This record gives sequence, C-alpha cells and structure tokens, in this order.
Amino acid sequence: MKKFIQINDISNIRKAIDEALSLKKEPLQFSELGKSKRLVLLFFHTSLRTRLSTENAASNLGMQVSVLNPGDGWSLELQEGAVMNLDCQEHIKEAARVVSQYADIIGVRAFPKLKDKKADQLDSILNGFVKYASVPVINLECCNGHPLQALTDAITIEEEKKISRPKIVLSWAPHPKALPHAVPESFIRCMRQLDADLTITHPKGLELDPETVGDVPICYNQTEALKDADFV
Amino acid sequence: MKKFIQINDISNIRKAIDEALSLKKEPLQFSELGKSKRLVLLFFHTSLRTRLSTENAASNLGMQVSVLNPGDGWSLELQEGAVMNLDCQEHIKEAARVVSQYADIIGVRAFPKLKDKKADQLDSILNGFVKYASVPVINLECCNGHPLQALTDAITIEEEKKISRPKIVLSWAPHPKALPHAVPESFIRCMRQLDADLTITHPKGLELDPETVGDVPICYNQTEALKDADFV
Amino acid sequence: MKKFIQINDISNIRKAIDEALSLKKEPLQFSELGKSKRLVLLFFHTSLRTRLSTENAASNLGMQVSVLNPGDGWSLELQEGAVMNLDCQEHIKEAARVVSQYADIIGVRAFPKLKDKKADQLDSILNGFVKYASVPVINLECCNGHPLQALTDAITIEEEKKISRPKIVLSWAPHPKALPHAVPESFIRCMRQLDADLTITHPKGLELDPETVGDVPICYNQTEALKDADFV
Repeated sequence: MKKFIQINDISNIRKAIDEALSLKKEPLQFSELGKSKRLVLLFFHTSLRTRLSTENAASNLGMQVSVLNPGDGWSLELQEGAVMNLDCQEHIKEAARVVSQYADIIGVRAFPKLKDKKADQLDSILNGFVKYASVPVINLECCNGHPLQALTDAITIEEEKKISRPKIVLSWAPHPKALPHAVPESFIRCMRQLDADLTITHPKGLELDPETVGDVPICYNQTEALKDADFV
Repeated sequence: MKKFIQINDISNIRKAIDEALSLKKEPLQFSELGKSKRLVLLFFHTSLRTRLSTENAASNLGMQVSVLNPGDGWSLELQEGAVMNLDCQEHIKEAARVVSQYADIIGVRAFPKLKDKKADQLDSILNGFVKYASVPVINLECCNGHPLQALTDAITIEEEKKISRPKIVLSWAPHPKALPHAVPESFIRCMRQLDADLTITHPKGLELDPETVGDVPICYNQTEALKDADFV
Repeated sequence: MKKFIQINDISNIRKAIDEALSLKKEPLQFSELGKSKRLVLLFFHTSLRTRLSTENAASNLGMQVSVLNPGDGWSLELQEGAVMNLDCQEHIKEAARVVSQYADIIGVRAFPKLKDKKADQLDSILNGFVKYASVPVINLECCNGHPLQALTDAITIEEEKKISRPKIVLSWAPHPKALPHAVPESFIRCMRQLDADLTITHPKGLELDPETVGDVPICYNQTEALKDADFV
C-alpha cells in the first residue's frame, strides 16, 4: 500500500479487522518484520492517543520511531517557505524528499485550522507529502478523515457485538468548539464498506458531506434514532 | 510496587541502596527484564537530569521509552479540559487511562506553579495519574517530593562515607527564586528512614513541613550546624 | 576522536569518504558497534535533515538516541543561568557534565543569532560543551561550520564525478534573509584538504573569512565562474 489516507485505501476492511484482532492476541508475532526500518511521525498538530498507539505498534513490529512535534523544526520550515515567497507546495516537496531518505514509512497529522473550510479541505500538508514522498504515507488525522480511528472503532464493534448485524448510531454530541468532520466521516466511510446497520443523527444545519453519507439514513430526532441501538 | 510517589513507598531503603550499588557495577545485568515493555515519561515541567537518567535506566532494562514534553499535546489536553468546563480530574482520568493502555510504567513530572501553595500541595496532576492509571506511576518530581533525587543522594552518601554513621547537614543556600521544598523534604524523609545523623540549618521563617522534619534537629546558626559535618 | 567540530578534525578526509561509501553500501555492517551506547542530540536550533540523518546513523550502529529540542528544558536551563547572574560558562559547565554522565557521544547544534557577529563567532554553547563534556562532542552546525554537511557534499561529489579532478564552483545564491557562513566555509575547508579544483563566486561585499578561503580563487563574475563547471 503506497498510502493510507482514507479508510477506502484498505481494499478489504473485514480482512483488516480479522488481522487486527489476531495482532491484539499476539502483538509481537511480527516483531522481526520492521527490523532496521524507521517510521517518522510528523505532528503538525499535537497528539496523545495517536502518537502513543502508533509508536507502540511500530515497536511491536521491531521498527525505530522518530517523532517530530510542532516547533521541533517543522512549523519553522513551513514558515520559512512563506517568507521566501516560494510556492508552498515546493517547500513541502523538499521536506517530503528529505524525510523519505530517512523514513521507510511517514505518518502525518495536520489538523484543520477551522478558519477557511475550503483551504482546510485541500489538506495541502498531507497531500503534499503523499505527492512528493517516495515512501508510503499514513494519515494520522487530517481535515477530511481519521482512518486509523475509524478502523479502531470498527474493531471495537467487532469485538463487542452480540448479534451479527448490530444497529449502530452515529450521534452528534454538544461541544463548545467547532470540530472538524474527520472522525465521523471516516467512521461513515468505514461502516458503509462493512455494510453495517448505520443511522446518523444530528441537528439540522450540521450536515456532513453528502457524498460521504451516501444512502445512510439521517434522523434529526436523536431519541428516535437511538431507539434499539446496539452501539452509539 | 503500584506507585513510587514518595520515598516512603520504598519499604526497605537500605536494601534499595544495595541493589542500586550492584546495578551501578553491572548496569546491564537485567537487560532482558523490560523487553517489549514501554515507559512513558510525561514532562509537564521541563527536565534534563531526570529525563536522561530515567531514559538511560529504562534502556538498560531493555525497555522502550516515549517522552512527551510540555507543548507536545499535554498542556493542550489540560487546557481543553478547562475550556470544556469539565471537572479537571475528569480530564486527567481520561488521559491517565489512555496512557495506561500503551505504557507499562508512567513517569510524571509536574512542578508546582509557586503561586498558590495550597493548590500546589494537592499535586493534582500526579495524584490524578496515580488514581486513574491502571499501571504503576513514578514521581519524577512534584510539589511535595523528588524521591528519585533523595534516593540518589542516599546512594552517593553510602558510596562516599568514611564512618558508619556520618554527620549529614541539610543546609539552605541562597537562590534568587522561590523554590519548592520537594528536594529537601524528600531528602529528610529518606534520611529519617535510614536513621542518619542529620541536622537541618536554614534561616528562621523558611520552615519546612513539621511533619516531614519530625525529630530532626534544626539549627538556625549555619556555622554551628556545619561543624564536623561529613556531608553537606 | 575527542571532538568533531570542524572538518579539519578529520585527519584523512579521503579515507573518511571511502569509509562512508562503504557504509552506504552496507549500512548495518557495524550494527553491534554502538550497542548499549547512547547518543544525546541537543538542538538549541531546530533541525530536520541533520536530526533524521544523525538519528538514522546512530541506529545503524546499534546506539540509543535521546533528542532534546529547544524548549524541552535547554533554553530554560540557559535562561535560568542568566537570571542567577552566574557566569554563563559556569552553567554550561554543569549541563555538559550532567549530559556526559548519560551520553557516550553528544551532538550539539547551536545556530548563530545573527545579531552580533563577534558574539556568534565565539560559538560559546558548542565550545562550552567541548570544554566541559567528558565524552566526544560532534558539531551539528554552529556559527563557524557545518562539517557533517561538508563531508556529505564531498561524498556526493566523489560518487557523481566523471573526471578525476572536476571543476567545482561554490556560488552565492540570493536569499531574503542573512545566512551564516557555516555551510560554505566548511565546504571550502573540506575541498582545500582534498585539493579540489575549486572556484568561489559571490558579489563584492559578501566576502567569506580570508583565512578559510586561503588561496582558492574568487571570481566576482558568476557567469564566468560557472563556465565548464562540473559541480555547482
């Protein structure tokens, strides 16, 4: 796999879930696979869960991990790009090539700025790396998706479900800050691939991307939506 | 040991010192003990000595180490908690559980803010982790103690002493900034457990916690206190 | 080698290039050499290339790496020194000794501030470490040189050259910010040791250190300088 940017980059999610469950039982079964290989994690936005889980996974595969956080050089590199009046993509081109020389896989997390939705949706940092890196790139959350989170949710549902096709409700929850749609949209894409019994509920006006939602039913009445739900 | 928060969490300090001296001679004698285990170090306050020494110790035991520094996501996580008007303990509860999933041991350093002594003494970050983490927690310095430092001092005294019960003087030294009592108080607790010949000297008005000091003599005349001292 | 501060610390650059080329072919041929040893990288100035390449090199030798970035404790330590009205060298003395206890090799990157050239040229941080550390120190770029970069350039020239003594032109390129002379000056020192056919071209007034330049020809006409160049 050259890149893992959206959940749809996994050709067979059911098989991926089965492999993940097997790995959970024996985390060290492939501990030689990543020997002498390096995962470089680039956090343009801070992270706790994603960082520790990815670092652990890499160690279990026998890989070395380098973590670059905001301010460790990255923010600066991009700022320099701006000062130099160069096309920003050009600068990422350079960075992506440099990192590719030392990484066997690159993980990129670049949270949206939530100021300009159109600019955010371009996901220019992540896509710049995908375009110019010569090694595989993993999306550790961007404006348009958080596929590792969606896969984890699917694994949890698989582990906990008591009937073969449980009713799953994706519900909006109040939050004081505007949040991006990365997590719910990746979740919907994942569930659609798994052909789950999914219902979406949220207030009118907070619509998700229609293309992502597809034919999944939307119910504006939360109480009704949650009725008989197995997973929320 | 579920936690190492204060020096008194070590049931037998003399035995710990002997083990430490043995480890100093052969640092790699337990290099298989921590294989496939991970130590997560959370620095809410910056560190140089404590970080490098703990990281080295973990490597000598064969462990992997993840270091999270201020600004790498932690400060933010806690701030978000404040914005959300949630109880702060609740938020640490979540963080402690997340880190526990990926760590076999958690080390926490959370320096006092020196603005509100009562608030500092609650050591709410460290205690939140102790309460909610499902793995052992180590105190890498908090408001009320720095037990690893105290243990190191005890080891140094053991190595250097020329008589079996040397006179040890804990002396105040001028410093332009207000400093917490973590280091001296942990030292006193350690020496009291070892039944050392300890004397404390400091100007009047800079009293340490009476419960920590116990029956250790305090001498307000530094010159007199230092007389015949083997260790200062 | 007790220190690697300038390219001239390598006694035989041609031999070093040959060894590097051999390592490029089999990067893991000395993977046992650094076992149970630790490289501590201190970035007083952010870095991407130098950090990832050095970290990779250390891993290939089997070493552990600790990376301390600006703000992780270092900037603070030095600031504290200033607040305490202590001589700044004194403070580095302490830090250099502490790090030496846990490191087998120390890498230091301390970029010039570009405000006071004379102050910058003292390279007080790097030189403080060289003076007080009890383990070898490597220069990861300072005001006066970037020897690892120069060595890399020399290796690239060795790999790509088509005639035994190619014409190499070191040319000035427009940049909106004042940049230090570390990279070109280290390059010149390296090429002089290799007795290469080197020409320097830059506008009048941007002179490099005459002692570094020595007898290398300077040509103020870029077009003329670049004529028949094999490497620029």
